[in-house]
Amino acid sequence: MEKTILFPKAGGFIHGGDYNPEQWLDRPDILKEDIRMMKKAGINCATLGVFSWSFYEPKEGEYHFDWLQHIMDDMYENGIYTILATPSGARPAWLDATYPEAMRVNRQGVRNHHGLRHNHCMSSPAFRRKTAEIDRRLAERFGSHPGLLLYHISNELGGECYCPLCVQRFRQYLDDTFDHDIEKLNHAWWTAFWSHRYDSFDQIEPPFADGEGSIMGLNLEWKRFTTWNMTDFLKSEIRVLKEITPDIPVTTNFMTLYNGLDYRKMAKELDIISWDSYPKFHNDEETLFDTMADNAFHHTIMRSMKKDKPFMLMESAPGLVNWHPCNKVKRPGVHKLACLQAAACGSDTVQYFQWRKGRGSFEQYHGAVVDHLGTDDTRIFRETAQVGELLKKIAPAAGTRVKARTALLFDWDNRWAIQDAKALSQQTKAYEETCMAIWKEFLKLGVEMDILPSDADFTDYDLLIAPMLYLLQPQTASCLKAFVQRGGQLVATYFTGYVDKDQLCYLGGFPGDGLSDLFGIISEEIDTLYPSDSNKIRFTPEYASMEWQVKDYAEILRVRDAEILAAYTSDFYQGTPAVTRKQYGKGKAYYIAARTAPAQMRPLFTQMLTDAGITPQNLPEGVEYHTRTGEEGNYAFYLNYAPTPTQIENIYGTDLLTDTPLNGSLTLEAHGTAVIRLPQQ
Amino acid sequence: MEKTILFPKAGGFIHGGDYNPEQWLDRPDILKEDIRMMKKAGINCATLGVFSWSFYEPKEGEYHFDWLQHIMDDMYENGIYTILATPSGARPAWLDATYPEAMRVNRQGVRNHHGLRHNHCMSSPAFRRKTAEIDRRLAERFGSHPGLLLYHISNELGGECYCPLCVQRFRQYLDDTFDHDIEKLNHAWWTAFWSHRYDSFDQIEPPFADGEGSIMGLNLEWKRFTTWNMTDFLKSEIRVLKEITPDIPVTTNFMTLYNGLDYRKMAKELDIISWDSYPKFHNDEETLFDTMADNAFHHTIMRSMKKDKPFMLMESAPGLVNWHPCNKVKRPGVHKLACLQAAACGSDTVQYFQWRKGRGSFEQYHGAVVDHLGTDDTRIFRETAQVGELLKKIAPAAGTRVKARTALLFDWDNRWAIQDAKALSQQTKAYEETCMAIWKEFLKLGVEMDILPSDADFTDYDLLIAPMLYLLQPQTASCLKAFVQRGGQLVATYFTGYVDKDQLCYLGGFPGDGLSDLFGIISEEIDTLYPSDSNKIRFTPEYASMEWQVKDYAEILRVRDAEILAAYTSDFYQGTPAVTRKQYGKGKAYYIAARTAPAQMRPLFTQMLTDAGITPQNLPEGVEYHTRTGEEGNYAFYLNYAPTPTQIENIYGTDLLTDTPLNGSLTLEAHGTAVIRLPQQ
Amino acid sequence: MEKTILFPKAGGFIHGGDYNPEQWLDRPDILKEDIRMMKKAGINCATLGVFSWSFYEPKEGEYHFDWLQHIMDDMYENGIYTILATPSGARPAWLDATYPEAMRVNRQGVRNHHGLRHNHCMSSPAFRRKTAEIDRRLAERFGSHPGLLLYHISNELGGECYCPLCVQRFRQYLDDTFDHDIEKLNHAWWTAFWSHRYDSFDQIEPPFADGEGSIMGLNLEWKRFTTWNMTDFLKSEIRVLKEITPDIPVTTNFMTLYNGLDYRKMAKELDIISWDSYPKFHNDEETLFDTMADNAFHHTIMRSMKKDKPFMLMESAPGLVNWHPCNKVKRPGVHKLACLQAAACGSDTVQYFQWRKGRGSFEQYHGAVVDHLGTDDTRIFRETAQVGELLKKIAPAAGTRVKARTALLFDWDNRWAIQDAKALSQQTKAYEETCMAIWKEFLKLGVEMDILPSDADFTDYDLLIAPMLYLLQPQTASCLKAFVQRGGQLVATYFTGYVDKDQLCYLGGFPGDGLSDLFGIISEEIDTLYPSDSNKIRFTPEYASMEWQVKDYAEILRVRDAEILAAYTSDFYQGTPAVTRKQYGKGKAYYIAARTAPAQMRPLFTQMLTDAGITPQNLPEGVEYHTRTGEEGNYAFYLNYAPTPTQIENIYGTDLLTDTPLNGSLTLEAHGTAVIRLPQQ
Repeated sequence: MEKTILFPKAGGFIHGGDYNPEQWLDRPDILKEDIRMMKKAGINCATLGVFSWSFYEPKEGEYHFDWLQHIMDDMYENGIYTILATPSGARPAWLDATYPEAMRVNRQGVRNHHGLRHNHCMSSPAFRRKTAEIDRRLAERFGSHPGLLLYHISNELGGECYCPLCVQRFRQYLDDTFDHDIEKLNHAWWTAFWSHRYDSFDQIEPPFADGEGSIMGLNLEWKRFTTWNMTDFLKSEIRVLKEITPDIPVTTNFMTLYNGLDYRKMAKELDIISWDSYPKFHNDEETLFDTMADNAFHHTIMRSMKKDKPFMLMESAPGLVNWHPCNKVKRPGVHKLACLQAAACGSDTVQYFQWRKGRGSFEQYHGAVVDHLGTDDTRIFRETAQVGELLKKIAPAAGTRVKARTALLFDWDNRWAIQDAKALSQQTKAYEETCMAIWKEFLKLGVEMDILPSDADFTDYDLLIAPMLYLLQPQTASCLKAFVQRGGQLVATYFTGYVDKDQLCYLGGFPGDGLSDLFGIISEEIDTLYPSDSNKIRFTPEYASMEWQVKDYAEILRVRDAEILAAYTSDFYQGTPAVTRKQYGKGKAYYIAARTAPAQMRPLFTQMLTDAGITPQNLPEGVEYHTRTGEEGNYAFYLNYAPTPTQIENIYGTDLLTDTPLNGSLTLEAHGTAVIRLPQQ
Repeated sequence: MEKTILFPKAGGFIHGGDYNPEQWLDRPDILKEDIRMMKKAGINCATLGVFSWSFYEPKEGEYHFDWLQHIMDDMYENGIYTILATPSGARPAWLDATYPEAMRVNRQGVRNHHGLRHNHCMSSPAFRRKTAEIDRRLAERFGSHPGLLLYHISNELGGECYCPLCVQRFRQYLDDTFDHDIEKLNHAWWTAFWSHRYDSFDQIEPPFADGEGSIMGLNLEWKRFTTWNMTDFLKSEIRVLKEITPDIPVTTNFMTLYNGLDYRKMAKELDIISWDSYPKFHNDEETLFDTMADNAFHHTIMRSMKKDKPFMLMESAPGLVNWHPCNKVKRPGVHKLACLQAAACGSDTVQYFQWRKGRGSFEQYHGAVVDHLGTDDTRIFRETAQVGELLKKIAPAAGTRVKARTALLFDWDNRWAIQDAKALSQQTKAYEETCMAIWKEFLKLGVEMDILPSDADFTDYDLLIAPMLYLLQPQTASCLKAFVQRGGQLVATYFTGYVDKDQLCYLGGFPGDGLSDLFGIISEEIDTLYPSDSNKIRFTPEYASMEWQVKDYAEILRVRDAEILAAYTSDFYQGTPAVTRKQYGKGKAYYIAARTAPAQMRPLFTQMLTDAGITPQNLPEGVEYHTRTGEEGNYAFYLNYAPTPTQIENIYGTDLLTDTPLNGSLTLEAHGTAVIRLPQQ
Repeated sequence: MEKTILFPKAGGFIHGGDYNPEQWLDRPDILKEDIRMMKKAGINCATLGVFSWSFYEPKEGEYHFDWLQHIMDDMYENGIYTILATPSGARPAWLDATYPEAMRVNRQGVRNHHGLRHNHCMSSPAFRRKTAEIDRRLAERFGSHPGLLLYHISNELGGECYCPLCVQRFRQYLDDTFDHDIEKLNHAWWTAFWSHRYDSFDQIEPPFADGEGSIMGLNLEWKRFTTWNMTDFLKSEIRVLKEITPDIPVTTNFMTLYNGLDYRKMAKELDIISWDSYPKFHNDEETLFDTMADNAFHHTIMRSMKKDKPFMLMESAPGLVNWHPCNKVKRPGVHKLACLQAAACGSDTVQYFQWRKGRGSFEQYHGAVVDHLGTDDTRIFRETAQVGELLKKIAPAAGTRVKARTALLFDWDNRWAIQDAKALSQQTKAYEETCMAIWKEFLKLGVEMDILPSDADFTDYDLLIAPMLYLLQPQTASCLKAFVQRGGQLVATYFTGYVDKDQLCYLGGFPGDGLSDLFGIISEEIDTLYPSDSNKIRFTPEYASMEWQVKDYAEILRVRDAEILAAYTSDFYQGTPAVTRKQYGKGKAYYIAARTAPAQMRPLFTQMLTDAGITPQNLPEGVEYHTRTGEEGNYAFYLNYAPTPTQIENIYGTDLLTDTPLNGSLTLEAHGTAVIRLPQQ
């Protein structure tokens, strides 16, 4: 696999973060000290201009870019590159005063006042015009600066708008989506129910708080439209920049599994994927491994959006954040763990929000490399500088990539449909948690697992897990059949294949669209358990030792032509099938009819991996493992989240962090890490 | 007692449900299959047109009724009758677009958008005109159809509207109610408090969210007005239908104890009472008996609204529903229990929402006889068909009625007043729960107990329970006195007789309006207990074994001329009277000063029944019992909710379900039922 | 110390309460009975007119004062004085109808409807004009009445208004506050963050619900402005009254620590401080002592606002209230305890809301001396009359004052800043609770402790506790330094000196503004603990026995030149300093870096008291103690909240309640009290 270095002129890993010099323009002493300390911390890049519009253009049409020129020049002269943000993430007060349409209207139909951040209408022509203008000027002035690496479009795009302009665009979007045929929409949305038929697209409104909330199809199309409109806005910014500087890549920073936007649609418009990672370190609900495993899931979904190159960790907190329910400080050594995890998962950058704490306003206590104290002798600064050194040591791994032969399907459309489904229990649907819990079992097995949309290309994979695939996209059923046909191992669960892309229930038996052929079963009923209810699944002698606890959901199956692996042990459906397997072509299709604890399912997963020809790692508890692969070498990352030392055997190669050869055994200290250049095979 | 068959041409029991063929007009195969399966399931009636307006009148003034004609004809030819709904429960999109005044304004003063269901202004002249027009056309077209049994007005009427038209009507209503004298209102509402006097009726507004909420009288009159206005709307629909087809009876479907409307006021306008029953089967808070006892309470309040004829179970779920917090499937056999309970309580129909699940929208997962699978070999279909057969077997009981000599008083006015009372603890008032818990003890004793408003005629009764009768209607006190005077047994409790119909406190001692004479006590203080507080009531030797736990409320009494049956055992009112009895005329008036567990009160209830000449049944735990009475025979119903078999002795007659004679002993299986035609006496 | 009798013509203690005869003008029998019963209960004053506007002026410009004249005359003839309220606390309906601007606009930007109480715009010229007019007429008519003691301005002023007039005034206020320099505001509010710079004061809006909420400086100035504007309204009422009757003192009634207004700013405009006390008696979370200790805290903060004279207990409930979550009746004897506590803390009045329960509306069940029963033979009436007698017995203590040499700093500005700080955990900041818990330890020690703002004069004090002094007013740091310099004992804690008055963080190390010199430490990090986290503080051998539990917060310190008294026992900062002390001038400055239980801190407090030359009392558990001091004698109050008797030694003097001499030992019964005239020293 060829290496892909994201920014050849900067080389290796990027170590940087958001930098807001505009807050300190009256303090040249501090700006000078910033450069000195960045160099000391091994910072080779800073992100500028994220919220600088009111400094670029303090009054409409009056532009000031010189201050930024000085900062970029100074940085560049000191070996620090620039990521330049477009400033559309927050608007100057004059802009909202002059163009009130730029302010969003909320679900209650009330236009916001000026303020906060995520508060712009994505449709507003005036705001798009003003944004294009400032973007154009930035690109013209700084597009050829030798320090410039990347454009960072806006900031953490999110939210939705119910203004008249957006309502109008929504109607147009629907008109296009349903081929200008209102009866097509009526059928897709099943509006005959409750007499909700529309005569024309002009009668349709978004799901206002005091309006229509009972049409599943409307709710889902509104989500899709919001992604479409946000992406359209994103494209409008990218277009201006690319016209002037087509060679400068663009990104925007994503936020884990943010529910409001289907990131995969937006990803198509970006050159590089980047995201912001803020785990709740040391919380009192879970182990550090569990916290970081969720973070690895997020790294992985980002990586899976563009498999041909590394991604970027655009933001993370050097110390703590200020907006968690409980803002505990990161324990010593944990910052290093988190930074190396990013690299292990395929990121080529470690970046922070923020370089220096501001004196006031909302994020004055958000962690930063430099505290209000202002010195370089703090614990946080020292740990940051240590990361700077580590990143230099592992530089050979930059540009390599993580490769997986297994994948988990996770869909925004499916997620929205499940959330909105008027069924089951609203409290225990837990689609995201279910996906993450299963994925985490493969992480513990040391098996790399991509996270894909259900309409992805499955060619590269040998094993697929599709939890709760409630909504089927048009081609998904046939692609899954083809996947198994050619030898793949597939797992589906309860609540699979109930509805089509418009959320119309399949007739003739779930899972629909032909999947009941693939699995050889029909689900006749789904039982929703109360928290105090319990049941079990007992396996046939083939899996003699297994008994799984059932909670939340249990489907009652009719088996057509599948092998029954296990049955329920109690309730009125005692003895009926709970886990089935069907040989289909060269592969196998498993159906797990009830919600069970993924840890109990591990023996089944292990067998499926064996059938797929994949060998799990034998990892100590609390250790995360990944390998980055490149033409010139492969690099194994070991991260020990446990508070005790541990040992791993059968490892050979060289630990880049210590420059020590390994002869079969690796000792990891408590919170210890290793990055092993593996012997060429 | 003469039998009253509700629909002689259909005969016996009605077995039916909501049917929405308009969702399947493009699928004649499905419509045909519906008829076949209805017959197979023993369905003899379907409810049509509940949400069909946009099919009747897809554009304003353009009417399409032929499709309904075909359905009704087909059904009739196959022995299936029609209940025809008026379509005002949901409006076409064009109607709201053309007449925005038809959409409701909420408590925040904001007009709703188009959507949902319960969203029409009851005052809107435009909406009334459009409703009258469509109703008129329906009656003209289908009023003489041989399959038509009943009109079903709108659907689950509910909610309130704060639009300018409703505000204006409210003022007019108050002007009439208070004899056009604003000072009469000022006195009744005690507006001298907080300087809230009104100069004129035009200054009065409903209790808007950001408006006046501190005048109890205003709050109560707004509730009364909403009932009045909803009833006026109901009457406006009935009027049109009766003009054209005076002989077709009308109903509307009630929803258990729905808080927003005083159903007894609406009941006066209806020919038949019907309601929708959706118990939370198999929840994790209570036994199945408890769940069903609540349901029996609801059946009974419906039955008590029109004692001269059977009522209708208009809706129930064949399987599960989709809107409970946890939508667990009904266990085998429980559907039968629920359906026979309806019959046992006096319903002559068992009807479902819905016949067939739609493919999309809000209720796509609401239980139905026919699932998305579409076949007649499902568990739910089989259980439904079984109910169809049972209803045929018990046909002789149709038209008979349940007769009670005891009654419990439950009032909407009193309920609203208690809810709004700024006293006690807002968390533990529990008026409804208190009434239901006491009523349930009589159910366990097998003693039939009607549920009446406090202004009812008590002539037919020998024992009355009046829990928490906080608000006294003008004649209630004197009627209760007369009841006891002539030999009745009466129980009142803490929080009785504090206020008059306007919620003005009685002066001179609670319970007011002369009730302190009847009971021989005055309540000086009422103590509200914290959850961790406890007290007890200990009885005099006459009731040697009794000690009741006190929770939530304890009144401190002064006894004037009553017998003291029991006293508190602790706190500063230790030793003061807690339960008293006064012989008054030929009867007895009991006062229970504190909240206690009804199960502990059973010995007292038993003695009162003895004094009233009523013999309780000796029922095994978990068994519900009722008798339906008719000139031609009496029918005893036994319903065993327990998961174990049980036996009942001293029963003679014939079990209609099995056509087996009983010679003194009846065995009920787990979830077993029996309907015994009793020997003529 | 000279005595200051508040109302010489009434003499001694005032015993009274709110009286609403306008509710009973049609019942002269009741009005007559009121006078008779007031005299029987020892009532010597009643508060009139609090909500009488619609009786004074039933239509605009039509005035009726005769009814009040009759009441005041009758009362005066019977020895009952009048406190006369201005009626602005609630407006007649016609006023809102005619001048809608008088109604407040809420945070959502929606104007309230007429109704409730706290619902007037403080800026409205129309409302100010109408208020001035009615106040003027009242003063002219009743200002020279011989029975008049005091004006009571409005009622429980509170709330805020977002109407256009208030927005305009807010801008003007900011313009003045920031010297007409928008850049000064931009710097103070750190608006460079998120590009939030303002070009002009006209762009600024209050923190609307859908508006700007992320600028800490804006949020704080809005709070300050609301106090300023409310005080301005208060002054506008006082001005009118003082013009006509300059010698009648004025007050307004405060509500414990009401969060919305900085009472200390308003106090400056008042002649006498008064407040409303409604403890949650007998709740299930705490002991009666704890409930009453919180109440003592509130008494003390009121007393500390005007140290040169007694304050007034303007409202309290004779029995129960009706608006607590659980409205339990006060146990026998507890009313006496609460009334004597007020006197012990420095109040010269015991007043009630309300004399007689109204028949209807929001407070019909609020406790009153006279119940709906209407007689004087109730428990509540008897206990009230007993208080009347006690107040006569302790009359010699009237006019004396409570003197303290220790003080606790509690600031509204600091409180608002802490509440709004985006840091720590939003759930556990608990500034008020922390202050109260520490203060309570000194109450248990029998050491009188004033409660002061941080910009107070510290001259009179020897020991200061400044918990969580997060925001430093401009002179506070230097005043604290001066205080310690001259020999004071000072305690500060974690979260001290982070921000200046605009909430800009100090650079160069916390605590800022020079306080790190005073304490000899810098706080490098603050750790927020999860509820399940724990740590401890272990002291050096000097305090061998002490070990404190740490919860919620722990700062990690760098010690510059302080003595380390104690260190953390675990976590990564194990062994680092947790409690320090620095000798500074003649005094000592303690820094306690973590949140700990005040009860564990008592040995440290005791030592500091010793160093300050103050001797704690040796009080039994559950006993509260205060001494009132006057030229003619000192009076010690003992209040036993325990349900068991107790004994106190070394007491000499005369118990005024029993007129018994004490020879060294005082026995207090369960809930017993004593007021001892101490021997002259």
